[in-house]
Amino acid sequence: MSTERVTEDCLGWAARDVSGFLSPYTFTRRAVGSEDVSVKITHCGICYADVVWTRNKFGDSKYPVVPGHEIVGIVKEVGSNVQNFKVGDQVGIGTYVNSCRDCEYCNDFQEVHCVKGSIRTFNSIDVDGTITKGGYSSYILAPERYCHKIPDNYPLASAAPLLCAGITVYTPMMRHKMNQPGKSLGVIGLGGLGHMAVKFGKAFGLNVTVLSTSISKKEDALNLLGADKFVLSSDQEQMKALAKSLDFIIDTASGNHPFDMYLSLLKTGGVLAVVGAPSEIKFHPASLIMGMRSISGSATGGTKMTQEMIDFCAANKIYPEIEVVPIQYVNEALERMINSDVKYRFVIDIENSLK
Amino acid sequence: MSTERVTEDCLGWAARDVSGFLSPYTFTRRAVGSEDVSVKITHCGICYADVVWTRNKFGDSKYPVVPGHEIVGIVKEVGSNVQNFKVGDQVGIGTYVNSCRDCEYCNDFQEVHCVKGSIRTFNSIDVDGTITKGGYSSYILAPERYCHKIPDNYPLASAAPLLCAGITVYTPMMRHKMNQPGKSLGVIGLGGLGHMAVKFGKAFGLNVTVLSTSISKKEDALNLLGADKFVLSSDQEQMKALAKSLDFIIDTASGNHPFDMYLSLLKTGGVLAVVGAPSEIKFHPASLIMGMRSISGSATGGTKMTQEMIDFCAANKIYPEIEVVPIQYVNEALERMINSDVKYRFVIDIENSLK
Repeated sequence: MSTERVTEDCLGWAARDVSGFLSPYTFTRRAVGSEDVSVKITHCGICYADVVWTRNKFGDSKYPVVPGHEIVGIVKEVGSNVQNFKVGDQVGIGTYVNSCRDCEYCNDFQEVHCVKGSIRTFNSIDVDGTITKGGYSSYILAPERYCHKIPDNYPLASAAPLLCAGITVYTPMMRHKMNQPGKSLGVIGLGGLGHMAVKFGKAFGLNVTVLSTSISKKEDALNLLGADKFVLSSDQEQMKALAKSLDFIIDTASGNHPFDMYLSLLKTGGVLAVVGAPSEIKFHPASLIMGMRSISGSATGGTKMTQEMIDFCAANKIYPEIEVVPIQYVNEALERMINSDVKYRFVIDIENSLK
Repeated sequence: MSTERVTEDCLGWAARDVSGFLSPYTFTRRAVGSEDVSVKITHCGICYADVVWTRNKFGDSKYPVVPGHEIVGIVKEVGSNVQNFKVGDQVGIGTYVNSCRDCEYCNDFQEVHCVKGSIRTFNSIDVDGTITKGGYSSYILAPERYCHKIPDNYPLASAAPLLCAGITVYTPMMRHKMNQPGKSLGVIGLGGLGHMAVKFGKAFGLNVTVLSTSISKKEDALNLLGADKFVLSSDQEQMKALAKSLDFIIDTASGNHPFDMYLSLLKTGGVLAVVGAPSEIKFHPASLIMGMRSISGSATGGTKMTQEMIDFCAANKIYPEIEVVPIQYVNEALERMINSDVKYRFVIDIENSLK
C-alpha cells in the first residue's frame, strides 16, 4: 500500500470533543493503493453509531471524529489490481473497511467478526496507523472487497441506509431462517432498523407484528410499511393475546426496556435477536427455560451477505424511508434522531451540500 | 381411565408445609388404566426441584407434596393396551407423566413443551383432578409413553439421575449439535447436572473445560470425570486465556452469578445454555452483539430423546456418580444438596428402606 500523501483535499465534518458538535474539517486520505476503490461520496446515512463516537459514549473516541458508515457514491478511481469496479460505478461502503482476510471468519465472508478485529469505517486504527474517517466527507477509499455494488436502477440516497441499518436486521433474519414465508416476526421499535425489518419481513412473506411503546407509530406500521399487526407494548391485554405466537423477534430498541414480557411472546424454540443498544439486558431465567427460548446478538454482517441484501432490495424494490438533509443540518439531525424524530433514516446529501 | 379407588396402599414421604420437612405419608393412587404401567419403585434421585416444591419456592405447592422425579423401578403391572412393557422390566419415569399428545410439540415428541402443559410427576393436577405425587414412594403409574426402558445391564440406582439431571444437559447439547467430536464445551458448575455434562462431553469426543468458583472441584473434574481443563472462574488470567475459545457453555449454576465474563469465553456464534436456576440473568448487550452469541434456555427433554439418552449411556457405559441413601436420611440429604455437599447426586434406596 502506498504511503504517499496528497494535500488536504478531503472535505469533511468532524466532532472535536465530547460535545459531539460537528463542523467543517479538511484532511488527507492515503493515495489509492493497488486494490483500493476511491469513491466520490454522494450520500451518507446518519446512524446512532455517529452519536456514540462523536460524543465518546464508549470512551474510545479519537478526535477529530469524522463519522458516517452508511456511505454511497460513485467510483472515481480504482487501483491497478481492482477487478470488479470501474470508474463511474455506483458503490456503497458500510461499517468496516478492512479485516485480516486470513482467519476463519474472513474466509467465511463474515469479516465483521474477523479474529484480529475488522477495521471500522471511522474512529478505528487503519493499516497505516492513521485513524479512519467516515462518510461525512467528500470522498473515501477502501479495498474493493469492502465495497459493494449498488445496482444502476437503485437510487443512491435510498441505498445509504442499507449499509448499516439494512444489513443489521437482514443478517439475523437470514441466520435464523426468517426468510421462510408464513413465519411470524415481531419487531420491537420502529426506527431506522425496525422499519427495515418490517420491509424485509413482508418481502419474505412473514406475518409481521410491530411492537411499540408509542401509539403514534401505528398508522405508519400498518399503512406505510404494511405490517400485519400493531401492538402497543404497554397494553397488557394485547400482549397477553400475543403470548407464545412469534417465531422470532428483532429487538431494535436502544433504550432500556423489560425483556421478560417480550420473551413471553415467543413460541417454543423462538429467538429474540438484539440489535439495539440498551445499557443492560435483564430477565428471569424461566423466560428462556420454559419454551427453550434464546436471546441472540448480531452486528451488521459480512461482505457477501451485504451484497446479497442490496441485490435483494433492488430485485424486490425495497427502499428505506428517508429524509434527505444537507450537511449543514447534521447537528440538528443527530438531535432529532436521538429523540426518534425521524421517519425513518436521515441521509445527508453530501454531493449537493458539502462544498 | 378407571376411577376405581383402592385402599391407601402407597407408602411415601411427604412435606406438609413450607418447612419442607419430609415424613412418612400413606396415600392412594388410581387403579391401573388400560395404557398405564405400574412401577414398583426401587430408587429415586434427589433433584433441586424437590426443594423448590417441598418448600413452596414458586408459591404453587399443593401440600402434602410427595417429591421425586428421577424414578426407576420394576414393572409390577401393565394395563390391557400396554405394548412395550411387561411385568419385571426395568423402567424409568422422569419429570412428567402425561401431556395432551395432540399438539405440535407432543407430535414431535417434545412433550415437555406441550401446548396445554405437560403434567408434572409431582405437585401437578392430574387428568382425574388429583395432585400428582412423585417418586419418594413405593410405587407409581403412568401411561407407557412416559415410561422409559432401562436396559437390563444398567444398574437401576445409577439410572435414576438420568431421568432429570441427565436429560436436562443432554437435550441442549444435542439441540446445539454438541455431539460433534472436536468441539469445545465449557461446563459452569460441577454438581448433579454439571458432572453429567462433562461425562456426555467426553463421550461425544469434545474438549471439555470445567469452570468453577471452587478449587476443590479441580481434582474430580480432571481425574474422576476426565475433563480436559479446569478453570477457576475467579482467576482473571486463566479466564482471559480462555477468551473466545468455546463453542458452547452449559451453565448449571443455580446461584446468582455474572454472565458477561462467561459469554466472553464463547467463540463467534457460540451459545450459552442456561439449565440452572439463578433468580435473574443480567449482562451487557455487547456481550451478545460482538460475536453474535446467544443465551438459550432448556428444560429436561422429550420422551424420544430421553430414551435415546438412556440407551446412549448404556452403550457407552456412562454412569452418574451417586451416593445412595435410605429414605430416612432424606431431610439431611436435601440440606447437603443445597450446600453442594454431594458427589454428585443423591439416590434414595426406596426398595430397601421405605417399608
